[in-house]
Amino acid sequence: MIHPIPAGTRDVLPDEMRELRALGERLRATFEQAGYGEVWTPMVEYEQVLRTGDERAADAAYRMFDDQGRVLALRPDMTIPIARVVATRLSDAEGPLRLCYSAHSYRVVGQRTGQQREFLQSGIELIGVPGEDGEVEVVTLALSALEAAGLARHRVGVGDGSLYRRLLTALEVPGDRHRELLECLTRRDMVGLELRVDALGLARDARDLLVGLPELRGGPEVLERAGDGPAGEALERLRTLYAALEARGVADRVILDLGLVRDLGYYTGAIFEIYDPAVGFALGGGGRYDDLIGRFGAERPACGIALDVQRVHVAQAAEEGQR
Amino acid sequence: MIHPIPAGTRDVLPDEMRELRALGERLRATFEQAGYGEVWTPMVEYEQVLRTGDERAADAAYRMFDDQGRVLALRPDMTIPIARVVATRLSDAEGPLRLCYSAHSYRVVGQRTGQQREFLQSGIELIGVPGEDGEVEVVTLALSALEAAGLARHRVGVGDGSLYRRLLTALEVPGDRHRELLECLTRRDMVGLELRVDALGLARDARDLLVGLPELRGGPEVLERAGDGPAGEALERLRTLYAALEARGVADRVILDLGLVRDLGYYTGAIFEIYDPAVGFALGGGGRYDDLIGRFGAERPACGIALDVQRVHVAQAAEEGQR
Repeated sequence: MIHPIPAGTRDVLPDEMRELRALGERLRATFEQAGYGEVWTPMVEYEQVLRTGDERAADAAYRMFDDQGRVLALRPDMTIPIARVVATRLSDAEGPLRLCYSAHSYRVVGQRTGQQREFLQSGIELIGVPGEDGEVEVVTLALSALEAAGLARHRVGVGDGSLYRRLLTALEVPGDRHRELLECLTRRDMVGLELRVDALGLARDARDLLVGLPELRGGPEVLERAGDGPAGEALERLRTLYAALEARGVADRVILDLGLVRDLGYYTGAIFEIYDPAVGFALGGGGRYDDLIGRFGAERPACGIALDVQRVHVAQAAEEGQR
Repeated sequence: MIHPIPAGTRDVLPDEMRELRALGERLRATFEQAGYGEVWTPMVEYEQVLRTGDERAADAAYRMFDDQGRVLALRPDMTIPIARVVATRLSDAEGPLRLCYSAHSYRVVGQRTGQQREFLQSGIELIGVPGEDGEVEVVTLALSALEAAGLARHRVGVGDGSLYRRLLTALEVPGDRHRELLECLTRRDMVGLELRVDALGLARDARDLLVGLPELRGGPEVLERAGDGPAGEALERLRTLYAALEARGVADRVILDLGLVRDLGYYTGAIFEIYDPAVGFALGGGGRYDDLIGRFGAERPACGIALDVQRVHVAQAAEEGQR
């Protein structure tokens, strides 16, 4: 008899579970020592709440009906539910809020992409600390948590979630073309991007910027080579952030990446992605989302990072194997 | 702006979450020290898998469609998914299997019943140990875990999941009336039970047995007063189990309850429910389910108990308040 389980989900048996549990505890302990308090939100949200956070978040979710015919969805991440909690039950809290979570989320992903539909995230949200101060705290803490988990060679890619969108607007690329170009970038499909940009028939300078800027990746020299131009504001923010990360002593872990985009649209500034050379996929990511909590009625600057615990576990094992 | 969350779910903020997390860890540590290894199964199962375990389990679940039109459901408990895992990935394991879990499950419950639809359970499943040996291990371990969590006055109700069903069959109550009578018992609606039994127009002895037997509740005298008759086999099993619990030194925590029924139908023998005098609801329950794993293709005797972590937390607080 075969009793299948849904694609993208797994059963975890005791030997692996013991390690995952220990890893999750280690990450959470690091976050709690830094003053982040754990929260839990329901696995199921009204679809309308997810849409308030991000149209595409609702699209990415498993949906069902409740007994009154309202549409419910499995949460596709913890950031939108936590934004809801901050804007409702924690709206009177003064000063910065430091929240963390260790919880599963669910996304509808394509068949045979090998991607998990059910994934365990351990993450942090820092609310009420604007600009590079917030970003440095979040990035540094995520790096420390990974170090506490035994990783040694992990890196953080740092980009800006608004950079390419602003470039598209400034260079007057028609709005209905933005999504496909951003999707190329999300897939890191630079050939596809170039083909589509060429098809726009732009002036040489604009074309080179749209194709060339997102290829820039590396150390601080990247920010010099990028110059200024239409993406100047985002680039200036990245310079400030890089200097702050340098001052904090973590610049050796940072890879500046002007082509970085995240698939959820609520990011308004810096975005992050975590890598380890031992594995070929991102261990997590996040960024600044200064508008998201406001959509739920209480404007507050915020940023956060989520780590995919199962992926960090794979990186942990791969790192150990290479020692 | 109001951003509702689904009925029967809750947001948990850091102060409470810290306590719930500590409680969950305490329970899990007790289970792991006793040799129980934690497992995780997907939050979402094919409805067909749940139905294989128990028709009513599938009815009790939130359902949705996957991208190929198959019906998925949120798991209504962890026992059925674990039975699936045991019969598939662990079917070669020799000797008893000791598995534990700490996971949320979901049930569609009525509006305004105050019941949680999303609940966190910490539980154990003991596979491959038949009869009272298995039941004593499971009951004793659950009682110890609650003691480790700081409860002092908790009790376990012990009954038999097949007792009333066999009584109904033996007394030739028409099959289409069984469900409503069992539902009265589940609700502890003894007046409703009596009315419905009277309406059956049975002989005096049969009527008295159906109304009187489930009222018996207390110490070992209950088993004497019950005599034998059509429920003899179940009563004999309860006598053996009680003697074994006495030998293990936990009889003072046991309340024999001949009217105990559990709402899921897969129990084949002893059933348990955990109480604390400080609170008015069961903290958890379980029982023996010797047929369930076989429905997935690998017959093995098994029993287990699940504790509702949020309810245990309420009892913990109430107990502390009374000291």
